[in-house]
Amino acid sequence: MSVFFSKRFEKLVPYVPGEQPRGQEYIKLNTNESPFPPSRKVINALNCAETSLLNRYSDPSAKALVDALTGYYGLPTGSVFVSNGSDESLAFIFDAFCDGKRGMVFPDITYGFYPVFAAFFGLKYRTVPLDENYRISVNDYKDISDNVIIANPNAQTGIYLEKSEIERLVSQRNDRLVIIDEAYIDFGGESAISLLPKYDNLIIVQTFSKSRNLAGARIGMAFASPEIINDLNTLRNSFNPYNLDRLAIIAGTEAVKDTEYFKKCTAEIISIRESTVKSLRALGFEILPSRANFIMAKCNRISGKELYLTLKERGILVRHFDDIRISDFVRVTIGGREQMDALVKECAKIIEERKKII
Amino acid sequence: MSVFFSKRFEKLVPYVPGEQPRGQEYIKLNTNESPFPPSRKVINALNCAETSLLNRYSDPSAKALVDALTGYYGLPTGSVFVSNGSDESLAFIFDAFCDGKRGMVFPDITYGFYPVFAAFFGLKYRTVPLDENYRISVNDYKDISDNVIIANPNAQTGIYLEKSEIERLVSQRNDRLVIIDEAYIDFGGESAISLLPKYDNLIIVQTFSKSRNLAGARIGMAFASPEIINDLNTLRNSFNPYNLDRLAIIAGTEAVKDTEYFKKCTAEIISIRESTVKSLRALGFEILPSRANFIMAKCNRISGKELYLTLKERGILVRHFDDIRISDFVRVTIGGREQMDALVKECAKIIEERKKII
Repeated sequence: MSVFFSKRFEKLVPYVPGEQPRGQEYIKLNTNESPFPPSRKVINALNCAETSLLNRYSDPSAKALVDALTGYYGLPTGSVFVSNGSDESLAFIFDAFCDGKRGMVFPDITYGFYPVFAAFFGLKYRTVPLDENYRISVNDYKDISDNVIIANPNAQTGIYLEKSEIERLVSQRNDRLVIIDEAYIDFGGESAISLLPKYDNLIIVQTFSKSRNLAGARIGMAFASPEIINDLNTLRNSFNPYNLDRLAIIAGTEAVKDTEYFKKCTAEIISIRESTVKSLRALGFEILPSRANFIMAKCNRISGKELYLTLKERGILVRHFDDIRISDFVRVTIGGREQMDALVKECAKIIEERKKII
Repeated sequence: MSVFFSKRFEKLVPYVPGEQPRGQEYIKLNTNESPFPPSRKVINALNCAETSLLNRYSDPSAKALVDALTGYYGLPTGSVFVSNGSDESLAFIFDAFCDGKRGMVFPDITYGFYPVFAAFFGLKYRTVPLDENYRISVNDYKDISDNVIIANPNAQTGIYLEKSEIERLVSQRNDRLVIIDEAYIDFGGESAISLLPKYDNLIIVQTFSKSRNLAGARIGMAFASPEIINDLNTLRNSFNPYNLDRLAIIAGTEAVKDTEYFKKCTAEIISIRESTVKSLRALGFEILPSRANFIMAKCNRISGKELYLTLKERGILVRHFDDIRISDFVRVTIGGREQMDALVKECAKIIEERKKII
């Protein structure tokens, strides 16, 4: 820490992204990326003609991408905000709508970045525990006047909250915002986007990093009333107006247009998830019911931490969280079929070895 | 403004980027982009093999790009920070090193984003007037204990401050940071990077948007002591750790490697600038002495605003600022030779027309 660093950041602990290994080749199932390449339409559009124009600024309003999303979801003009990954959307949302008076509330187990955003901007937050089945109980939120953010399906658990429950949460009170972080919604959940016309206190955040196969292009978005989107653009234009580069805007726009590929990829992930869950359960694993492109798996023969380390030694990278309530689990991204077969095979071996030891 | 927008942003006025016209074709000399395409090495590297990997996250440490810059400038490990455009570097610098106690000071005429960053983060700032020749007088800063940011060459004037003067500014006192925003340094100035080993209170900010022909890739960087860079990374990782996408990292890395093309392009801009200045002066224009890729030009026969509007009508886009001290000028980006010939020709016509009217 330099002597010049503001004292207000002395205790700031940054978010820790999943490992991005260099050198050694892993079966990489730790950061919830898609195992499938981007749409051919994306790859074809990112051609020499476009890269030759990189000396020119990108469109700060990212109109092509905003229009494509507006059309795809059938939203009114002015309802779409785009950002450099959905983390940037989330950051601006925390900053715009919380302050010393109004804080943010979220479940105790969820996306680990939420408390970091609050700390970064010096905002209040508090957590509400998930129930004993790792589920969100909407009734727990009815007396909360702070803003509420829920990941749905929830990060780290993959558990999905029905749209009717989301509506109950949003309609509990209109004096607070409810933000639904739908990073994983396309793997079997139903988006709350259709609720937007009814509720001015709802913001939905999505990303191109999972179901749109574009984690490396860094594109996120938020959907809300034009007034709220306008507030977010005020902040964006006071921080970094050209936040999406030319190629990201093109990639996102083309990805939205290729509905067929999007549906094919997400259906395939769901299918692979279901067969992986079946195989791991057959080996004795407990798996939380997931509607995401990852699963939380635990086995009473080996701790979460040990399983993570053993798999890593053997060339398979999954993720482990130290949070006490989920430290028995490993989080496994749904990769391609061969990758998941390799994972299941390795898990079977590890369990066999443990049986012999005991 | 939504009812949920935090009251602390009620008066926030965002930065206004230069017009990015759609539809009509302009000779675009308003946002200080390079008229030359990116290096062939950049274009060749952004190939199908790379775009096919966009389903994978980018490296959050952007190691390839950081290493390329560290090597190019011969800096110690840990001295380079990279960001989504240099605006993001500047934003993090304002946030990290200023607060309620320590503010930021900058000239009254400079990059218009500085006061916006201060307002966005709720920081104090004040300005020090340029002298009557639009020059920075280093002595004006000697009693200032707040941090100081100077664009060199200065934004909006193009006027360059010698490196010896920069050193005098930095060495005036060691209890404050001096930030040198070198967005335009490669068009005839000498970077203060060589001062870094001597001064722990110096930060240098640069960008790929001007001299590296990559405005559309959104890459900026800061150079400073490893402690300061570490502070900036703490903030980056608390806001948006994957702030550079895969293709931007590749583009930046390849651009740094192509020194020959970089030198050729910047030399060409300098040559075109000098001949444009000569031609416009011959027409009676007053031009501030520029070491940037733009010039400030004024003519006593037509106001800055009128000249901007007349040129726009005739298909040439330049930039006009309402700030009272420079409102007589238009800011003209140095484009390609044909573009500048067209500009000079049009200016000559406009002046002839004015002579007839009077």
